Amino acid sequence: MANAEVMRGDDAMRECIDHCMACHRVCLETLADCLKRGSRLAEPGPLRLLMDCVDICETSARFMLRGSNLHSRTCFACAEVCAACATACEELGDEGLMEACADACRSCEESCRGMSGGVMPQPLNPEAAQRFADLPA
Amino acid sequence: MANAEVMRGDDAMRECIDHCMACHRVCLETLADCLKRGSRLAEPGPLRLLMDCVDICETSARFMLRGSNLHSRTCFACAEVCAACATACEELGDEGLMEACADACRSCEESCRGMSGGVMPQPLNPEAAQRFADLPA
Amino acid sequence: MANAEVMRGDDAMRECIDHCMACHRVCLETLADCLKRGSRLAEPGPLRLLMDCVDICETSARFMLRGSNLHSRTCFACAEVCAACATACEELGDEGLMEACADACRSCEESCRGMSGGVMPQPLNPEAAQRFADLPA
Amino acid sequence: MANAEVMRGDDAMRECIDHCMACHRVCLETLADCLKRGSRLAEPGPLRLLMDCVDICETSARFMLRGSNLHSRTCFACAEVCAACATACEELGDEGLMEACADACRSCEESCRGMSGGVMPQPLNPEAAQRFADLPA
Repeated sequence: MANAEVMRGDDAMRECIDHCMACHRVCLETLADCLKRGSRLAEPGPLRLLMDCVDICETSARFMLRGSNLHSRTCFACAEVCAACATACEELGDEGLMEACADACRSCEESCRGMSGGVMPQPLNPEAAQRFADLPA
Repeated sequence: MANAEVMRGDDAMRECIDHCMACHRVCLETLADCLKRGSRLAEPGPLRLLMDCVDICETSARFMLRGSNLHSRTCFACAEVCAACATACEELGDEGLMEACADACRSCEESCRGMSGGVMPQPLNPEAAQRFADLPA
Repeated sequence: MANAEVMRGDDAMRECIDHCMACHRVCLETLADCLKRGSRLAEPGPLRLLMDCVDICETSARFMLRGSNLHSRTCFACAEVCAACATACEELGDEGLMEACADACRSCEESCRGMSGGVMPQPLNPEAAQRFADLPA
Repeated sequence: MANAEVMRGDDAMRECIDHCMACHRVCLETLADCLKRGSRLAEPGPLRLLMDCVDICETSARFMLRGSNLHSRTCFACAEVCAACATACEELGDEGLMEACADACRSCEESCRGMSGGVMPQPLNPEAAQRFADLPA
């Protein structure tokens, strides 16, 4: 590690890995909690987002732990999924693990957004723009 | 399924899932083959890219099979990783499973690129631009 | 490949990989279908088993594709989970993808059971001790 | 949580999840370190075992976090893989992360061994009982 700038980058990555693994864990626990509680917590949208979040957090963490130089791409996807999952949890309110899960997703989103520098959604045409407009949060 | 346009979208997704799962499989086999053959095939770069490709192909397929509306993000990441992995395999030449792996990666890249409409790498500053310039292919 | 016996073993493994990947796929599709249909299909038990089945099928396939000599352990776990998932799908009846999912799970169970030959849950005797001693350095 | 016994079981599972996730992480880091160092650390056996360990630790943690009652099967497989991976790391000596990785594998092995103790869910009916009776050893 040659200089302070690289060290800072390394610290940011380590923190991002921590956020991804914490988010991965709380999403799995929230998923289990939703299934147990049933009712409106078991709606398709949030459950699917929780499963999405588990998988992309895991993949994103693996890329960084492996030292892959394409981690910006998986971090970008992870930030996007975490944002949508956090919004879904926030809308479901304060039952069970929802608040803790939303917090973990927001932290992971912010951290992954920082690691994904340079990757941006860029609507290429009206249809794509509409698709983005329809996406959660 | 209401009309021909939606059907076409559905067919494209089904085909993309097939490509992701085929690529996931041949990358795992190529990884095993590289380890057995050793020597220059076992260099860090290609092995790491093969592992990356296995993980993102799996995640990308999961998002589509689950009907997640954020699959464009994982497909974008998958297209990028497949492109880099294909290039690495092509450079390693015709030993073992390298050619078959490169082919599977190229097909998966093209298919995922089509599913990722609207997500584009957009260098925000010189440092990020340089980082992209340094990325494989 | 030296002789017919090895060939047969190789064919059985290839078939088992196919079953694991097919089961992995239909379980993910069934999961999505259950979420869409809601009601009793979205009960915690079956959903959790479907998620379990997706994960262990994937891991079991990876072990075999990588040529890992501990695949008997993951195949054993996979056979057990597939059996439970098949039973859950059969009990939920003929709605949606349930029958197709049960069939895929039964095929995968049988195939993985065959690949898990020497697995013992209680390695407390000389034979088992020897097996551990023989594990890859 | 009704009584102390259940609490103890719950604590053991939480600890086991921690061990699986810590082992998953250090194995990924060790894998990256081996690739960077090259030479004898990049032999097929250890690399394959490290990849195996990453995958089964992840799956094992997921089963427990999801509250799956088949976690004893994945914990059993995890204990076996961790044992083999620890031995491989110990034999490779004190270079890089090998010692830390061996330690994490041993802790995870022990913890998973404890969770796989019964390796039996409650047989609910004669058919299930027969199925268990037919299981290997």
